[in-house]
Amino acid sequence: MRCEVVAVGTELLLGQIVDTNSAWIGERLARAGVDCHFQTRVGDNIERIVVALQVALGRSDAVVVCGGLGPTPDDVTREALSVLLGVPLVRDDEVLARIRALFGGRGRAMASSNERQADVPVGATVIEQRRGTAPGLICPLGSAGGAGARPDGAGGSVIYAVPGVPREMTEMVERAVVPDLEARMGQRSAIVSRVLRVWGEAESALAERLAPRLAALDAAGNPTIAFLASGIEGIQVRITAKATTAEAAAAVLDAEEAELRSVLGEQVFGVDDQTMESAVAGLLGEHGLTLGLAESMTGGLIASRLTSVPGASTWFRGGVVSYAGEVKFDLLGVPPGPVVSEPAARAMAEGARRVLGADVGLAVTGVAGPGDHEGVPAGTVVVGVALAEASEASRLRLPGDRVTVTQLGAISALDVLRRRLLHQAGEASG
Amino acid sequence: MRCEVVAVGTELLLGQIVDTNSAWIGERLARAGVDCHFQTRVGDNIERIVVALQVALGRSDAVVVCGGLGPTPDDVTREALSVLLGVPLVRDDEVLARIRALFGGRGRAMASSNERQADVPVGATVIEQRRGTAPGLICPLGSAGGAGARPDGAGGSVIYAVPGVPREMTEMVERAVVPDLEARMGQRSAIVSRVLRVWGEAESALAERLAPRLAALDAAGNPTIAFLASGIEGIQVRITAKATTAEAAAAVLDAEEAELRSVLGEQVFGVDDQTMESAVAGLLGEHGLTLGLAESMTGGLIASRLTSVPGASTWFRGGVVSYAGEVKFDLLGVPPGPVVSEPAARAMAEGARRVLGADVGLAVTGVAGPGDHEGVPAGTVVVGVALAEASEASRLRLPGDRVTVTQLGAISALDVLRRRLLHQAGEASG
Repeated sequence: MRCEVVAVGTELLLGQIVDTNSAWIGERLARAGVDCHFQTRVGDNIERIVVALQVALGRSDAVVVCGGLGPTPDDVTREALSVLLGVPLVRDDEVLARIRALFGGRGRAMASSNERQADVPVGATVIEQRRGTAPGLICPLGSAGGAGARPDGAGGSVIYAVPGVPREMTEMVERAVVPDLEARMGQRSAIVSRVLRVWGEAESALAERLAPRLAALDAAGNPTIAFLASGIEGIQVRITAKATTAEAAAAVLDAEEAELRSVLGEQVFGVDDQTMESAVAGLLGEHGLTLGLAESMTGGLIASRLTSVPGASTWFRGGVVSYAGEVKFDLLGVPPGPVVSEPAARAMAEGARRVLGADVGLAVTGVAGPGDHEGVPAGTVVVGVALAEASEASRLRLPGDRVTVTQLGAISALDVLRRRLLHQAGEASG
Repeated sequence: MRCEVVAVGTELLLGQIVDTNSAWIGERLARAGVDCHFQTRVGDNIERIVVALQVALGRSDAVVVCGGLGPTPDDVTREALSVLLGVPLVRDDEVLARIRALFGGRGRAMASSNERQADVPVGATVIEQRRGTAPGLICPLGSAGGAGARPDGAGGSVIYAVPGVPREMTEMVERAVVPDLEARMGQRSAIVSRVLRVWGEAESALAERLAPRLAALDAAGNPTIAFLASGIEGIQVRITAKATTAEAAAAVLDAEEAELRSVLGEQVFGVDDQTMESAVAGLLGEHGLTLGLAESMTGGLIASRLTSVPGASTWFRGGVVSYAGEVKFDLLGVPPGPVVSEPAARAMAEGARRVLGADVGLAVTGVAGPGDHEGVPAGTVVVGVALAEASEASRLRLPGDRVTVTQLGAISALDVLRRRLLHQAGEASG
């Protein structure tokens, strides 16, 4: 099965937006075992969208066309599909009612331009929208086909139209497009992946440590391992297994995960979509501990990440963003002295614990840059952790510019807390 | 003059790398007044690169093919050009000597695989490399043309091959490709864009309000207007102007920006890359005011956005993330009662102002969902603003899931503060 991606949007061609959608779709197709040989970007122009789709259909069995489904006049993917398929657009009452209801629910009147989003080419199936207004479309091209049918007339090809807003697109591709492609492929081999998320080592060092295992796998051919540096979210080690059934493939994944964990140990903080904050949340929940936070350099980023975890209110008490020095001294009770130091980080953590009424206090102070601050070089971060029995501080040195240091500081601080809580577990059960 | 971009690399199709090169080249071509209607991504495969180039040459006068010029066996752009042009590759002694000298200069022996980088299709001109080893190529296709010549046989088309390493590519495109395209165009036009960033109205409502202006522009043809929904960052209204010189195009932009601002008023919070937080920062700086923050529902997100603005320490005192109710009552002095309410939001803002020693207090309380909280429906957000003279609160109703409500809540709260500070300015000068 070959599937191309056509991304629609003049802003993509003008370089005002980088086309991350196609990369995401390409990766997702590859994981589903679908070959993607070409990806095209085209502007908001009916004739040129038709050309791009025709070219794609001449080479492949399926096309995902992404973008141009919005309510404004420059959104013309629906019209292009109508031209390509040689069928009229018909307003779908059910879709229209749903869009109207969405606007009603927000207490706003729907502009008449939104009605266009309910237009559906005759013969197409609507993919329900769950995150926005524009529905997706599945447009099958029979073997009799329109202008875009494959020259050999074999089989039926298909066009999937999905919105260009990434969070709407990804949800729709996962829920409707990939399953439909898989159904069309008929019997297939199961290709499944699992990602181990790792923090605490450079990619090259990690690769070196895993080299013997990689060599052994290269010989066997299944599963395969790939590294993906995801910057401030650490390194992803992806295991991909192929088998005749999903169960058999999952068993291969399980065995390989155990193998890799025996090498990587507590560097593995999560699996697949698990984030560092969800790992911390899990450990706090496990031990029935609440958390209070004091951040200066990270400026609210850690609080923001922690509160994004569903159910955070059961263990997160709150935080103090002590950006001005006086806030550290007056509110958190940090004693006078250098604010980027072990004593200050410990005092901040103790202060957060006390002021916010939490079992555990976590504090971050540091210099994001650019340039030194009070003689402390940029990239210096001190993390404090306070528990009922004692407090401790760790000093880190992080690379990069202001934004990178801030983001690395946030995940590093969470990792310090995660490892402390892992050992807490050991102490409690020891 | 029409020029397409063909980006070569299997890793682009697999989503392992996002294709930022095409976006950069597209932006650069637009600035040079060159129309770029299509961009294609293709894998490291001779046959498929040839197909991509043929399709592009069938539609355009020029193609920039980017990537696949390296020394490894999967770098096959040179071979694809040889097939497409129907001419052999000949090793260029001068290029070879230069590559050898580069390796010698670094004290390394040159691997024989690097010799391939000196292969040049007969009839092509070499673009000297100044930042790496792989030279670029200019391959003219005469009107007699090969397989890739335009069907009408008119004029001569051209292929530019440039490396995929961004810093090598950009230097080569600036130095050799754009000047060559401009020379081929003879006289040229300048195309420039400006984006107005807007908050406070749905995209469809905005389009309706601007409809008369859009109709007038459609008739004139220059400048053009496009809308771009950037989700939680509001709507972007892009003005694109074409003129014979960059100065003339800028004057068209200035005039149109004034026209649009007269319709949109204070909904416009920024231009191009300006964010909502930088707009707030600018207003605080202008009035010499410091800010203290109290967030519950947004959980640190607003603090995080504000501290990402360079120089935030001059006006940002800090924040309190009052996630647990007790933190609101004990630390911020919020009186007992429902926490998602106007009185609570005002008290939080006053508390933030007092506790953090700030001139202005901003507070956000709300229900992100899923589900109601204490009888208040999900999506309800109350924003409080406290100044020395008085405090006030606004109630908003936001759509979407938990993550969306949180993000919309953050930018909406900043917008409430921005508009209050705009009026503050009015009062001060009034």
